[in-house]
Amino acid sequence: MGGDRGPPVVVPGLAQGLAIWRERNVRFLLHGDRARIEPELARFPQIVPLCEIRHTVQVISGDEKPAQAMRRGKGSSLWNAIEAVRDGAAQAAVSSGNTGAMMAIAKLLLRMAAPSLERPAIVVTWPSQKGYTTVLDVGANIDCDAERLVDFAIMGEAFHRAIHKAKRPSIGLMNVGTEDLKGRDEVREAHRLLMDAGLNLDYRGFVEGDDIAKGAVDVVVTDGFTGNVALKTAEGVARFIAAELRAALTASLLGRIGAFIAQGALRRLRARIDPPAGGPLLGLNGTVVKSHGSADAKGFCNAIAMAVDLVQSEFASEIRRNLEQLTVALKEEAATSAVAAEPKG
Amino acid sequence: MGGDRGPPVVVPGLAQGLAIWRERNVRFLLHGDRARIEPELARFPQIVPLCEIRHTVQVISGDEKPAQAMRRGKGSSLWNAIEAVRDGAAQAAVSSGNTGAMMAIAKLLLRMAAPSLERPAIVVTWPSQKGYTTVLDVGANIDCDAERLVDFAIMGEAFHRAIHKAKRPSIGLMNVGTEDLKGRDEVREAHRLLMDAGLNLDYRGFVEGDDIAKGAVDVVVTDGFTGNVALKTAEGVARFIAAELRAALTASLLGRIGAFIAQGALRRLRARIDPPAGGPLLGLNGTVVKSHGSADAKGFCNAIAMAVDLVQSEFASEIRRNLEQLTVALKEEAATSAVAAEPKG
Repeated sequence: MGGDRGPPVVVPGLAQGLAIWRERNVRFLLHGDRARIEPELARFPQIVPLCEIRHTVQVISGDEKPAQAMRRGKGSSLWNAIEAVRDGAAQAAVSSGNTGAMMAIAKLLLRMAAPSLERPAIVVTWPSQKGYTTVLDVGANIDCDAERLVDFAIMGEAFHRAIHKAKRPSIGLMNVGTEDLKGRDEVREAHRLLMDAGLNLDYRGFVEGDDIAKGAVDVVVTDGFTGNVALKTAEGVARFIAAELRAALTASLLGRIGAFIAQGALRRLRARIDPPAGGPLLGLNGTVVKSHGSADAKGFCNAIAMAVDLVQSEFASEIRRNLEQLTVALKEEAATSAVAAEPKG
Repeated sequence: MGGDRGPPVVVPGLAQGLAIWRERNVRFLLHGDRARIEPELARFPQIVPLCEIRHTVQVISGDEKPAQAMRRGKGSSLWNAIEAVRDGAAQAAVSSGNTGAMMAIAKLLLRMAAPSLERPAIVVTWPSQKGYTTVLDVGANIDCDAERLVDFAIMGEAFHRAIHKAKRPSIGLMNVGTEDLKGRDEVREAHRLLMDAGLNLDYRGFVEGDDIAKGAVDVVVTDGFTGNVALKTAEGVARFIAAELRAALTASLLGRIGAFIAQGALRRLRARIDPPAGGPLLGLNGTVVKSHGSADAKGFCNAIAMAVDLVQSEFASEIRRNLEQLTVALKEEAATSAVAAEPKG
C-alpha cells in the first residue's frame, strides 16, 4: 500500500519480473486492501498464481512519526509484512512506505543482529567510474563507535557480494586525508579492529570522499551523519551540474543544435547517474528492502529482485559469521587488557 | 616561493592585478630568493615600484610535516611572510606553499582569535544555483563542540560579506534531515546558541547536504570532518559526471557532432564548476590566504585580491565583535545555571 501511488505501482512492478520469479521460485504475500489490490491483479492475470492477498485496510501514512507508527501500527499493511518475516511466513519484506516507520517496526519485530547496532543501517549503491560503490550508513546511525563502524563493514561487504556478484569486495573506511590530521578517534579505532580482528574481509584502509565516485574500493564505510551529508551533497551537485549543462547548452543557437544532436547520449548519461530504486535495511534478523516512495513499476521490481538476491545468497550467514568473529576478537582483547592491567608479581 | 612553480607564477599573478593594486593602494613584500625573483620582475617592469624583495634562500618543501616546519622553518620564505603580518610590516600573507606548514606556522606566530579554536578553519567558495555558497570548516578542525561551530558561523558570515559584498549573509547549520533523527548533540547545542546568544547574524536553522549547491543559505557551517568529506565527495561526483559526459558524447557519431557544435557551451560550464583559486585560514589574529599549489597566475592574482578584500573591509572587527558577544552569552549562561543549581531558601 506504500509509496506515492500504492497498488497501481506495486502490482505492475510484480508483473514486470514474472520470468525472474518463475525461474527463482518466488511467491508473494500482498499485504493491504483487497478492494484496491484485486482490480490491479485483474490486469495481470499471469501473476495471480504467485500471489496471495493478506487483507487489511489499516495503513501507516507517509507523515506518521516512527513512535506513533510503533504504538498504533499493529495490523497495518507495513506491520503485517514485517511480522510475516518474523514468523517465517515470508523470507523478505519489500515496501515503498514510510521509511522511519519501517525502521522502527522492523527493529521492534525483528531485533538487531548485533548488540552494538542502534538501528538498521541504510545502504546506497553509488555509480562510480568502475561500476558501483556500496556506501553505508547514509542516515540511520548518527553517532557511531568503532565497533559499529566495523559492523557496517561486515554488512556492506556481504551486501555488495550478494548484489553485485563480486567474489571478494574491497572495503575502505572514510576519513580525511590532510597530512597532519589523522581523523577521529573512533575511525582510527575501527581501522585498528579491521586490521587486527581476524575478520575475513579485504580491508584496504582509509579512503576519502572522492574515492566513492572513483570506485577506489567496492564498499565505503562511514557513520550515518557523514554518509547522509555526503549523499545529499552529491545529489545537490549532480542536480546543479545538470541545470548548468542545460543552461549552457540552450544559451546559444549552436549549443541548442549540439544538444539536440547529442540528446541520445545525454539521456544515457542521465540514466547512469539516476539513483537506483532502493536498498535494504541492514543489521536486522531478517531481510527488509525499502523501495523509493517515488519508484515506478520498474523501480519496485528492482527492489524485489534485490530482496530475492539477498535471501537466495549467503548474505545472512556471512554477516552472522563475521559478527561472531568480531565479538570473539573484542572479548579476547578485553581479556588481554584486563590481564595487562593487573599489578605485576 | 611556494606552489608547484614559485616565482614564475607568483610574479605574473602580481602583474595581472596591477590596475587593482594601484587603485586600492596595495604594495608587496616578496619573500624568497632574490636570484629567482628578480629575473621574473624584469619581465614586468611596471610592477617593480610596488614590490620590495625580502631575501631568503630557505624554503619549506611541499612534503615537509607541519611539526618539522615549525621546528626548522624559521627564516624560510613562508615563515617570514607570516612573521611580517605579526610584526605589522604587512597586513596579509598570501602563499601557495605547503598547507599544513602554513597552518602550523600561522597558528604559532599569530595565535588563534578565539579560545575555543584549535586551529584555523578552512573555507571554500562553492558554486550554487544562486551564486556562491561559503562552506566551512572543510578539513582543519576534526572534532567540533558547539562553541566552535558557532565560531565558524561568525567567521564564515564575515568572510562571505567581505568577499561577496552581501549585506546580510544567511547562515545554515549542517544536519541530517530524516524525521526521527535530530542530529548530533553538539549540532543541536550550536543551533540553540545561534538562536539565543544575541549574535547579530541572520541564522536560518538546519540545512542538509543538497542545500549547498542549491544556495539555500549563503554560509553553511559544519565540522572539519564532515565538511572535508562533503567537499571531496562533491569533487569526485563532478569529475565522474564530466567523464561520463565525455564518454556519452563520444560514443556515437551524432554525439561527437553534437559535442563539437556545443563545445563553447561546455567550456563555459567547466569554468563555472572549476574550483576557485584558494581561501583564507580563518580564526587567526591576522589575514593569511592560501592559494592552490597548482594555481596559475590568474588564480594567484585572485588569491591576492581576496586578501585585499579581507584587509580593506570590516572583516576582522566584525568577527571580533561577534566572538566577544558569544563569550558574554556563554558566561551569562554559566552564571545563570550556577545560580539555578544553588539550593533554594
